[in-house]
Amino acid sequence: MSTYKAPLADLRFALYDVLGVEKQFAELGYAEASRDIVDAVLDEAARFTEAVLAPLNAIGDQIGCKFDKDTGDVTAPPGFKQAFDQFVEGGWTGLTNAPEFGGQGMPEVLGAALTEMVDAANLAWGNFPMLSHGAIEALNRYGEDWQKEAFLRPLVEGRWTGTMCLTEPHAGTDLGLLKTRAEPNGDGSHSITGTKIFITCGEHDLAPNIVHLVLARLPDAPPGPKGISLFVTPKFKVGKDGAMGERNALRCGSIEHKMGIHGSVTCVMNFDGAQGWLVGEAHKGLQAMFVMMNSARLGVGLQGLGLSERAYQNALHYARERLQTRSLSGPKFPDKPADPIIVHPDVRRMLLSIKSLVEGGRLLSLHAYSQLDAAHHATDAAVREQADTLVGFLTPIAKACQTEWSIENTYNALQCFGGHGYIAEHGMEQLARDARITTLYEGTTGIQSLDLIGRKTAVSQGAGLKLFLGMVDAFVKQHEGDAALAEFVGPLQAKAAEWAQLTTGILQRAAKNPEELGAASTDYLFYSGYVVLAYWWARSVAAANASSQSAAFKQAKLETARFYFARILPRTLAHKAAIEAGAEPLMAMDAERFGD
Amino acid sequence: MSTYKAPLADLRFALYDVLGVEKQFAELGYAEASRDIVDAVLDEAARFTEAVLAPLNAIGDQIGCKFDKDTGDVTAPPGFKQAFDQFVEGGWTGLTNAPEFGGQGMPEVLGAALTEMVDAANLAWGNFPMLSHGAIEALNRYGEDWQKEAFLRPLVEGRWTGTMCLTEPHAGTDLGLLKTRAEPNGDGSHSITGTKIFITCGEHDLAPNIVHLVLARLPDAPPGPKGISLFVTPKFKVGKDGAMGERNALRCGSIEHKMGIHGSVTCVMNFDGAQGWLVGEAHKGLQAMFVMMNSARLGVGLQGLGLSERAYQNALHYARERLQTRSLSGPKFPDKPADPIIVHPDVRRMLLSIKSLVEGGRLLSLHAYSQLDAAHHATDAAVREQADTLVGFLTPIAKACQTEWSIENTYNALQCFGGHGYIAEHGMEQLARDARITTLYEGTTGIQSLDLIGRKTAVSQGAGLKLFLGMVDAFVKQHEGDAALAEFVGPLQAKAAEWAQLTTGILQRAAKNPEELGAASTDYLFYSGYVVLAYWWARSVAAANASSQSAAFKQAKLETARFYFARILPRTLAHKAAIEAGAEPLMAMDAERFGD
Repeated sequence: MSTYKAPLADLRFALYDVLGVEKQFAELGYAEASRDIVDAVLDEAARFTEAVLAPLNAIGDQIGCKFDKDTGDVTAPPGFKQAFDQFVEGGWTGLTNAPEFGGQGMPEVLGAALTEMVDAANLAWGNFPMLSHGAIEALNRYGEDWQKEAFLRPLVEGRWTGTMCLTEPHAGTDLGLLKTRAEPNGDGSHSITGTKIFITCGEHDLAPNIVHLVLARLPDAPPGPKGISLFVTPKFKVGKDGAMGERNALRCGSIEHKMGIHGSVTCVMNFDGAQGWLVGEAHKGLQAMFVMMNSARLGVGLQGLGLSERAYQNALHYARERLQTRSLSGPKFPDKPADPIIVHPDVRRMLLSIKSLVEGGRLLSLHAYSQLDAAHHATDAAVREQADTLVGFLTPIAKACQTEWSIENTYNALQCFGGHGYIAEHGMEQLARDARITTLYEGTTGIQSLDLIGRKTAVSQGAGLKLFLGMVDAFVKQHEGDAALAEFVGPLQAKAAEWAQLTTGILQRAAKNPEELGAASTDYLFYSGYVVLAYWWARSVAAANASSQSAAFKQAKLETARFYFARILPRTLAHKAAIEAGAEPLMAMDAERFGD
Repeated sequence: MSTYKAPLADLRFALYDVLGVEKQFAELGYAEASRDIVDAVLDEAARFTEAVLAPLNAIGDQIGCKFDKDTGDVTAPPGFKQAFDQFVEGGWTGLTNAPEFGGQGMPEVLGAALTEMVDAANLAWGNFPMLSHGAIEALNRYGEDWQKEAFLRPLVEGRWTGTMCLTEPHAGTDLGLLKTRAEPNGDGSHSITGTKIFITCGEHDLAPNIVHLVLARLPDAPPGPKGISLFVTPKFKVGKDGAMGERNALRCGSIEHKMGIHGSVTCVMNFDGAQGWLVGEAHKGLQAMFVMMNSARLGVGLQGLGLSERAYQNALHYARERLQTRSLSGPKFPDKPADPIIVHPDVRRMLLSIKSLVEGGRLLSLHAYSQLDAAHHATDAAVREQADTLVGFLTPIAKACQTEWSIENTYNALQCFGGHGYIAEHGMEQLARDARITTLYEGTTGIQSLDLIGRKTAVSQGAGLKLFLGMVDAFVKQHEGDAALAEFVGPLQAKAAEWAQLTTGILQRAAKNPEELGAASTDYLFYSGYVVLAYWWARSVAAANASSQSAAFKQAKLETARFYFARILPRTLAHKAAIEAGAEPLMAMDAERFGD
């Protein structure tokens, strides 16, 4: 069984020493978020996730969720409900939500630290609160006042949970194709009819009511994505007085058998004239959906990060314990029958790959969340807008890179175990199976990549990239002539310039042939992710040097940064070459010629 | 459920048009291997694997092997035994074995084509004959005459199956640590006592007897790897007369719960004074083990290839059928509600990545097997030795690259399905789980990489590389001035020169610091694999042009080659940079500083 210990030291380093959240929280008016309180929250989150959630991770995988065909009920794995009750009692569900609806009003970046720990401890369990979080965001932004009281408050307080009901069998990425209908009932409510699939936590026994946010078409809806509206459609009807009434006309039709996240139920949901209430404007459902989706995308990025962290801890432990063969440069532990495998350079290559992607990735995600806080709470409107642009730019990178890296990281961690990694009892293969969903849901890596190069770059004339390059530039200027950082600052500056050039090149080619965007998209996303991490590694070394961390901590940051620049950043060379090869090698082949 | 159709057209192209096996078979004296016969074998193998094995693939995964704790018996999934009986009746088990022991004496390269189809159709099932193949190789080379009659013949005829019993809990890669003992019985046999783990097909109901080839230590054995001997140790005792007698003192103690290949049983085998017979010389067991192992390594390479081929077929089918969003350059099928996703460049990128690695990889493996045929059957001793050197050099590349690519290929194929790929019913997630074992067993990728840069390069002064570069050189010379090939010949020539230089650089650094070998190993292996495939892609285009294949076939080869050179080969840039960064970034960190 794999184990988990919350990486508090590195979380604190990231928050305080690198991102400087103490100053930011004060500027943004988070009066409650003093260092004492934040530290206490982190400590308590660590205790809860290590003691309560982590031990349920293997059980959730082995037993999974049970579906009762006759009643449509779903039973979560043993212990999941009790853990959720404790989570609710601890006030965790509302950590970052508005106090007027029962939340604690803490910064999103602190919520992100909690979410990383939750997902590392138990990814499948973590989906229950994550889906609520998306529903909360949408209701908070677009809900009417009575809807906020009736639905938002119980979600924030954790009494109920939420879902996002978007996908239909023929409509996944392409929501414009969806068929679910909403007919006005005459009393302000609508009757929702249709079938939704892939509904995470669509039915379960963790809470007495489940608040589904459902995309559907009104009778007068124009075809395509501009005819979609959003409806809040609870499992048990809720009137304008907020009272929970009779069972609504919706139920879970079946649950999916999946590669992993067995503890997180994936439902087919049948709506059969269920009472739903319009959220926001008619036909503007996609806008509201994107509010949920963006929150979920950053959240899935944290899932990748959490899995990678847990994979690393277990691989490192094994690499120090497992004795097998001798170092090529002579025995390191001559008194033992063999050396621990961590002496071997190739095992170190795997471990350092994970470590550098995890610690760098942590900053990528936490920084994005800190910008979310600025986007919501900065006093200056221009600062809010800039922060919002930056979050939008970083979201597809954080979502896709962290999840793709979680595939690589769980691969490498399992590989450190040799054949033992393939055996269920060590828990490494569960991490690999669980990781596999993260590059698929809430938009595949391909969709994130198109979002990055399309909406977040081409459409916005590179506004997000410019802001990030501005950060790089400021850092470079700040540390010009700093001998301790020269080995990083120079290469970072060169990569940043290359990134700008590469972007311009793609956009110029795309002006003539729009397929160039798609052709470049995924390689461009990875390229961007690696340069972003180079920035965070350079900043990590600078921040460590300037901090009161121990000499060993500083040395480890320095050595990991060196590894990253020497061994990971060169991947940009391959991505750049692939991008510059353009669309022709992808588009030339007629669909027929791909094979029989 | 995923489907499978044997890729006969590409197999024939590889064998006849690229490798020119007709000429080779004639030169090596394979009188039976006429084109008619070979074609008939391929057709029949396709029929058998498609109709009998492929439909059992999902069943094997869902039901798995059952272990009876009380008896130690293992029951294979439903249909597995019947399929094995048909395989035996068809004479497939002895296809490439010597006629004097019941085999059909066909070339190994034809056996490889069969194995690819078997593994694509049903990887877990394919392990039963594969393990026998290794045992056959060892007995054929090192067995005494009576052992060949008593053990080899029933294995060749498929009446019994074989295993390799190497690993112990504390001795995986490092077999020198193994503890299993062999005590002489005085009658020429030995009593074998010890516990072996990870024994693929160690116990099952497919055949009445199982022939275990067991590594153990004789009483007078020196410590370490030079004190290991090999013993043939059957489930039911076999005397020198070949008669099957009473149950031997060995049994399966438990079976492993694994991420995948559920239909292939992985046993803990307890030997409790079991009767075994020494195979080959005392204390020279590792030599014999390597004969089994090399056969198994090339075989595992084919497993990777087979999985990748099947993954491709299913992803391609889905990409042509699934309608979702419109092409960025405007609707391609305006009469349909959306375009099939194969119009999107990023979906094409994934499909072409798989296609180019599969078709190129097929040549990598089949060529290695054709050199195995030459190593065994060439009339000229120098040719035999060269071929043997080349097989040795190509084996770690074929094993590790094909299996690593199978991870990538099953990843990309699943990704084409979006969320549907994560659901068991489509069968794509099984392919990904099954693929995950291939980079672990019969030596992890790290071990293959060390074998390549160490024994197969540094120790042998690059003999294998020189032979391969000689092939490249001959091809380049042959096609100098061929305008149709110029786009490939130039880059191939440059990469080959770079490969030679890179190798020299590593060996020079390693002369000062042996850790440089390990530090370069895995990146060097991938680098080598990509250059090898560049050679095969260039040769594929040349061979297609010179063949009587259809214009569409030639065009597809040309376009896939272009994709490979534009989009895959640039990965060498990243691997080269990582190699040239040297050992320092890997070795600097003290084991303590990796984390808590």
